[in-house]
Amino acid sequence: MPIRDFTDHDWPQVWPIIRDVVRSRETFPYDPTMTEDDARSTWIESPPGRTTVFDDGRVRGTAKMSANRPGPGAHIATASFMVAADARGRGVGTALAEDALAWARGTGFAGMQFNAVAESNESAVRLYQCLGFKVLGTVPRAFEHPARGRVGLHLMYLEF
Amino acid sequence: MPIRDFTDHDWPQVWPIIRDVVRSRETFPYDPTMTEDDARSTWIESPPGRTTVFDDGRVRGTAKMSANRPGPGAHIATASFMVAADARGRGVGTALAEDALAWARGTGFAGMQFNAVAESNESAVRLYQCLGFKVLGTVPRAFEHPARGRVGLHLMYLEF
Repeated sequence: MPIRDFTDHDWPQVWPIIRDVVRSRETFPYDPTMTEDDARSTWIESPPGRTTVFDDGRVRGTAKMSANRPGPGAHIATASFMVAADARGRGVGTALAEDALAWARGTGFAGMQFNAVAESNESAVRLYQCLGFKVLGTVPRAFEHPARGRVGLHLMYLEF
Repeated sequence: MPIRDFTDHDWPQVWPIIRDVVRSRETFPYDPTMTEDDARSTWIESPPGRTTVFDDGRVRGTAKMSANRPGPGAHIATASFMVAADARGRGVGTALAEDALAWARGTGFAGMQFNAVAESNESAVRLYQCLGFKVLGTVPRAFEHPARGRVGLHLMYLEF
């Protein structure tokens, strides 16, 4: 799999992916006006967390992963995935997610949690379900989609 | 109600409350080794968020409240509450929570979400349910309680 750890040299390819995803307001509950510096401090995880890229000659997608919470919650992982608009539907997200799951299992986490998956993001919901995640609950109308209006945010979980 | 906005003069009374709650590892998924500076930056919300204290001559408890997420999630509020160990069971938490709900309704939020309520924290779960919150889902074994082992973390929600 063309997945490897992020290095500083990747940022010029990673930032446009984040920028476009965030500005679209379609999938991530991030500030759509976030600056490049904000994005960098949000997305680049220091160890023990990790940021990855899918690179087949160009960076097609990126993931970050870490403990979901500190202290008494630190045994559950979380992760986020972004794929370039022109690379969707080709398995990039699946590869990034499988790699993140392998990392979390290998690091000794007890499960992985996604805190806020927009229910309108059907390809992500389907992918996570294929990987074994369940929707544990949905906060109704918690995500303001630019075209669909207020849609639910799923809490999704996979216990290892 | 003896509830008012936090001022810098309150910090010497607020920090021991946070320190004791966090070090106990019984209720909050915060880093139990957090420093005073970490606690301050975590707990003191800048506008449009807000931090409050319950003050009847001494600070008995404190709350913080804000949007739960930025961008497309910014219409849902969240809040956290801490009460001094020697002031529990006297309505301090209830008063702080009612005030936070009034603030969130008045500010125009569409609901309030608690992301991680330890199911072993029965007094908090009961209080929130009395205020109308529902458990939307529970991440099993996601909170490492020092005495009870791994207990669930509830996602709780009240739509206004």
